[in-house]
Amino acid sequence: MAKIAQRYVSVDPFKIIENGFHPERSKVSESLFSLANEYCGIRGTFDEGSSFETLRGSYFNGVYDYAKEDTPIHYKGIIQRTHFMINSVDWIKVGIKLDHHSVKVDAKTKGFRRELDMTSGLLTREFDYETDQGNYHLCFTRFLSMVDCHRAYQTLEITSDHDTTVDLEFFLDSKVLHWGHDCYYKGIKNYHEDDMFATINETLTTGQKVASFMHLDIPQEGKYVNHDRGVSVKYTVAFKAGQPRVFTRFVVNLVDKDQSQSVASLIKDGVKELRTSVNDGYLGALEKNKAFWQNVWDKSDIVIEGDPLNQQGIRFNIFQLTQTYHGFDPHNNIGAKGLTGEAYSGHAFWDSETYCLPFYLFNNPNGAKNLLMFRYYTLPQAIERAGMLDCKGACYPIATLNGKEGCNLWQHASLQFQPSTGVAYGIFHYFNVTHDVDFLLDYGFEMLLQISNFLLSRGQWSQDGKHFGFYCVMGPDEFQMMVNHNTYTNLLAKKTFEFTLSVMKKFNDDPRVAKALAKTGLSAKELSEFARAAEHTLILYDEKTKLYEQHQGFFDLPHIDPDSIPVEEFPLYAHWSYDRIYRNDLVKQPDVLMFMFLYSHDFTLDEKKANYEFYEPRCIHESSLSPSIHSIFASELGKEKEALDFFGFATRMDLDDYNRNAGEGLHTTSIAAAWMNIVYGFGGLRSDSPSVTLAPTIPSIWTAYQFKINVQNQSIGVKVTHEEVLLSKTSTEPLELVIYGCKYVLKETLRIKR
Amino acid sequence: MAKIAQRYVSVDPFKIIENGFHPERSKVSESLFSLANEYCGIRGTFDEGSSFETLRGSYFNGVYDYAKEDTPIHYKGIIQRTHFMINSVDWIKVGIKLDHHSVKVDAKTKGFRRELDMTSGLLTREFDYETDQGNYHLCFTRFLSMVDCHRAYQTLEITSDHDTTVDLEFFLDSKVLHWGHDCYYKGIKNYHEDDMFATINETLTTGQKVASFMHLDIPQEGKYVNHDRGVSVKYTVAFKAGQPRVFTRFVVNLVDKDQSQSVASLIKDGVKELRTSVNDGYLGALEKNKAFWQNVWDKSDIVIEGDPLNQQGIRFNIFQLTQTYHGFDPHNNIGAKGLTGEAYSGHAFWDSETYCLPFYLFNNPNGAKNLLMFRYYTLPQAIERAGMLDCKGACYPIATLNGKEGCNLWQHASLQFQPSTGVAYGIFHYFNVTHDVDFLLDYGFEMLLQISNFLLSRGQWSQDGKHFGFYCVMGPDEFQMMVNHNTYTNLLAKKTFEFTLSVMKKFNDDPRVAKALAKTGLSAKELSEFARAAEHTLILYDEKTKLYEQHQGFFDLPHIDPDSIPVEEFPLYAHWSYDRIYRNDLVKQPDVLMFMFLYSHDFTLDEKKANYEFYEPRCIHESSLSPSIHSIFASELGKEKEALDFFGFATRMDLDDYNRNAGEGLHTTSIAAAWMNIVYGFGGLRSDSPSVTLAPTIPSIWTAYQFKINVQNQSIGVKVTHEEVLLSKTSTEPLELVIYGCKYVLKETLRIKR
Repeated sequence: MAKIAQRYVSVDPFKIIENGFHPERSKVSESLFSLANEYCGIRGTFDEGSSFETLRGSYFNGVYDYAKEDTPIHYKGIIQRTHFMINSVDWIKVGIKLDHHSVKVDAKTKGFRRELDMTSGLLTREFDYETDQGNYHLCFTRFLSMVDCHRAYQTLEITSDHDTTVDLEFFLDSKVLHWGHDCYYKGIKNYHEDDMFATINETLTTGQKVASFMHLDIPQEGKYVNHDRGVSVKYTVAFKAGQPRVFTRFVVNLVDKDQSQSVASLIKDGVKELRTSVNDGYLGALEKNKAFWQNVWDKSDIVIEGDPLNQQGIRFNIFQLTQTYHGFDPHNNIGAKGLTGEAYSGHAFWDSETYCLPFYLFNNPNGAKNLLMFRYYTLPQAIERAGMLDCKGACYPIATLNGKEGCNLWQHASLQFQPSTGVAYGIFHYFNVTHDVDFLLDYGFEMLLQISNFLLSRGQWSQDGKHFGFYCVMGPDEFQMMVNHNTYTNLLAKKTFEFTLSVMKKFNDDPRVAKALAKTGLSAKELSEFARAAEHTLILYDEKTKLYEQHQGFFDLPHIDPDSIPVEEFPLYAHWSYDRIYRNDLVKQPDVLMFMFLYSHDFTLDEKKANYEFYEPRCIHESSLSPSIHSIFASELGKEKEALDFFGFATRMDLDDYNRNAGEGLHTTSIAAAWMNIVYGFGGLRSDSPSVTLAPTIPSIWTAYQFKINVQNQSIGVKVTHEEVLLSKTSTEPLELVIYGCKYVLKETLRIKR
Repeated sequence: MAKIAQRYVSVDPFKIIENGFHPERSKVSESLFSLANEYCGIRGTFDEGSSFETLRGSYFNGVYDYAKEDTPIHYKGIIQRTHFMINSVDWIKVGIKLDHHSVKVDAKTKGFRRELDMTSGLLTREFDYETDQGNYHLCFTRFLSMVDCHRAYQTLEITSDHDTTVDLEFFLDSKVLHWGHDCYYKGIKNYHEDDMFATINETLTTGQKVASFMHLDIPQEGKYVNHDRGVSVKYTVAFKAGQPRVFTRFVVNLVDKDQSQSVASLIKDGVKELRTSVNDGYLGALEKNKAFWQNVWDKSDIVIEGDPLNQQGIRFNIFQLTQTYHGFDPHNNIGAKGLTGEAYSGHAFWDSETYCLPFYLFNNPNGAKNLLMFRYYTLPQAIERAGMLDCKGACYPIATLNGKEGCNLWQHASLQFQPSTGVAYGIFHYFNVTHDVDFLLDYGFEMLLQISNFLLSRGQWSQDGKHFGFYCVMGPDEFQMMVNHNTYTNLLAKKTFEFTLSVMKKFNDDPRVAKALAKTGLSAKELSEFARAAEHTLILYDEKTKLYEQHQGFFDLPHIDPDSIPVEEFPLYAHWSYDRIYRNDLVKQPDVLMFMFLYSHDFTLDEKKANYEFYEPRCIHESSLSPSIHSIFASELGKEKEALDFFGFATRMDLDDYNRNAGEGLHTTSIAAAWMNIVYGFGGLRSDSPSVTLAPTIPSIWTAYQFKINVQNQSIGVKVTHEEVLLSKTSTEPLELVIYGCKYVLKETLRIKR
């Protein structure tokens, strides 16, 4: 399974640069040059259109629709109709005719260059274009405001080497195709007043409205054109030879997600905000963006000395993660591909709490809290879902945009409980690091009660009544479908029960505990059942070998050596008969190792070594989330070479398109795993015990590296060299940390020899 | 799970009679009064149309189409588009206007009566109808020729109490809706010449043509009307008060299943056959039918004295089974609902060899052979299917019309191997009873080799290399989905290997053995692997309890007492969350008991008792095939009450609509199980050992019963009374039978005291 870099962007500490156009990478570039601001995202498509392979995508967080066809399997608990984030208004589109010739990047284009500046979020693209009348230089910029999320900006600068006129047509187009097939919008109203133009359109079944407004900063009158689901404005502008002209488009996109606004009020709001945006100006908005990003880098930057490739890679990851989500709206979540593509339907998975949360927890605690608040706001849907599964409490969906289960593969939706236990783990993890009692008691505890109640009702007692556990489940390792006593599921349920009960006990006197209990209607008997189930949960552990068995019977499964599988058969999902994947001891992604990572504190180094050495050789990493976890273990176990091998493509998975599918969108949640790979892996951070612990190592190829973590609202800088670890923080409030196994009370700086 | 009879048809030895119309049973009656002749079938719908609930169905064996939509799950080995038997030309439709009023049976209809005569296959229906002008009596008859399968007949007799004219319009209509939704026909040609009318239409994707021809025996010229996908002929006929007039329609339906015939040749053939049919006349054809049925009853009747309900029930079953299939065409098979409805898609399942074959084997050996020949003719499709599953050899489909897998539920299609082992068992069973060496060596052995090769490639060796068996399978008990070492699957595979090898050894000198081996290309090593796999197949058996474990881990599953489940939660498939069905020790239908039934000879009475007493209380019989097998065991174990209880609704499942779904079609394959219930259950027939054995018991409520079995081409009559068993046969050739455990050589008659 050798992964090979397909590098074509220049290496730069804070920029992604493509010099010369790479037509065979057209879709990959669209993904890499994606912009987003959590509210919306737009792929790095060409403003003027493209004659190359393209996925022209513009997305709004939480704007979705339902599939047009039902699943043909009609049993209770099986989702009949999935929902997905849809491709929305194309507000970047501009038609350009130079000397009556429509401009499109083609083989004759010269001097093509584009650049994404991660200190401002500005995307710039320029090239030379020759017609039979002469030469032109075109330069496009765009950015999304990180501060005023509705606002977007585009400029087009054209220089001609001869006197001429140029035809321009600026579109707002909602007649866009989702996955190139269907449009999910119907037209509601097109609108213009003075120099403001708008199109308001509505999704087909969810009835969400997307209203897009634009103003064009062009000192002449344009010709308004009314389209089906869109508007455009046409200009014919005069050029003097050698005198550049800049055309600026101000865009405001408003979304009415919950059918609460009238068209009139959307128009009123949009026009008002657009006027403000125009008044503030393009440069003013760009300055605000720079300040936003300066703050992000101050708080979250990872500096790697001596390794410019990973330096660029990890910054790209932090930049994209922050673009996708920084927690300004607790109703947003993180799709597997962020806002950079339509694959994975824009759905949030258990990745949010398990893989993404740590990045926010240690860089942006309020963002972390809001990521968990999404689950609080969608608790009613999780309660409804548990009912569909003949269970009590709350079952969180395996894939969702609106809180309802969006996965129509029952084998995942009805058998995987990582989302539910992942939310419980997220609450535990967040509280453990932040000590945020208010969140825990106002929101977290109620979720914990509902999740515990679900787990109690979905779990079963063995025939002899001695053991509690889960039958017919699929753990994180999706290559074992319908198994009994998956240790991950059993253990996380046990931990969920225990944490729920410990919160109840610890905050017994707080009226919010009683309030949550009353709200859930749980009886004393049910609560005592949590304790009994936790006490008797079956955990398959062999004292002699120190191995945890992934599920009952795993050790007896027919063995397949991953190295014996021909390279062309990967990914197995695409090449093996579906049932064949499930009947051997191949592991898709960490399962036993996953719970040993999450509850690192509970396991000895010997246990970790035994299980890593047993399960790692069986793992084929058919999930992009897998290598980082293995790298973290290898670091802890002193296997530096393995740690580096697994880290090999973590930070640059998309920049170098290791998985050959970056064209469909970035691996946004894997990006978060790459952050963990450095901070948990090399930095040795662990955050599941009462004190945050660190045990930094440094790869021999690095000179030094630095990262920051926020613990209990204090920002701690960690710099690791081959000689020492230097910790520093700005506040002087003492903070307990465990470093290399020893307790330290950190005040300002602390220097530890390695 | 009490099942309650909903009886409304009169009890009669050879007739099914409905006196007075039962509107709430309109669809059930359509099923019960279905006619078929293996070539085609037509539900007992009203010729003149109906204003009640109706499923107006006309079907042709092997005429099918593909679904319009793909399954949304796209993995290798998963069927993307299912196929199904489609609703075809409505050739019975007739519009009747009495005094300008369209006749439809309604609340005011008087004297309604219909009757299905099982000695001729004639369906008669009559009623009185009143208009504002006067009274009418209408009588309809129809039948399908059992001898000339293309031919069908309809008469309409009308009597008026006043002089009047009546408008009649006779249709051939292919614009029919499948399941009330879609029409799967496009029009090709409508045609008429002289007094012959025809419509030729073609299925949408399979391109099969159905050509329907009619001649109307009415002594005046009709008005031909051309329709989309159909034709009609209109008449206005004069009536004298009190003088009945009869109108006869002769129909010929031709099917071009494999796109081999031109429209012109279809028309030529159809017109020719229709002329012959008209010349032969209605009465002539009916006489031929009577002779056909006389022969069936001579060979296959079961006589039950003292129990008119079951007497009628079993005859109805034999009648319907024979209508559905009697083996005139080896390309036909038996759908789960025969030709009586669209449910189960007209698909043949493993029911054909496992539940239906015995009826034919002992009544119509040539039909039995042809049922197996269907599998020989579809061997290429089974080989292709094995390849889709990354396996070798031949994997027979779980559901099919054309030999290809038609089930788009991967959990059944990719995990259940009962069809493949069922075909192997069928070959064994057929050979064991008939001693037909030619079939075995010309066809059977090749199938056995391919099935064995499939089983070898799908099976796996345990991690320690000691045991062979099947991982991730679903046995006959469909409540245990994805289990390892299902004993049924393992044992039937072992038996298949062993039988294949035994045939090879026994007929080693026959060149056909070498020919089949050469054809399959199996190496000596592969053949030796059959033996090694058979020798090491894991069979989970506990010496102490004599229990076979249904699969690895079954005994540890959480226990649910079926009696604790509220009645309204049945069927569980419709009321329980899909995953919930699979995580307990409930059994849907016999699994361990099934292999103990099929290989009865291999197990001791003690073993049968232990396993019956363990598994029966766990079985909820959510398959109509289940109770009969349990009844057969109960009989053998001397549990007369239980045997009778399970037999309770076997023969009258549809007549009394015990399952509340007879309206969708008859449970045709269950009908075969009812036959087994009597002959294997009370008669104690076993046919898996070298000699056919009998051990008759008689339910106390019966005075006597008789059945016939054909063994090695000799027909044996068995009459059982409370005092004795009387065996008789016409030929004098000696035949070895085992009765009550003792060997007898039967010559003419044999009387054994009970």
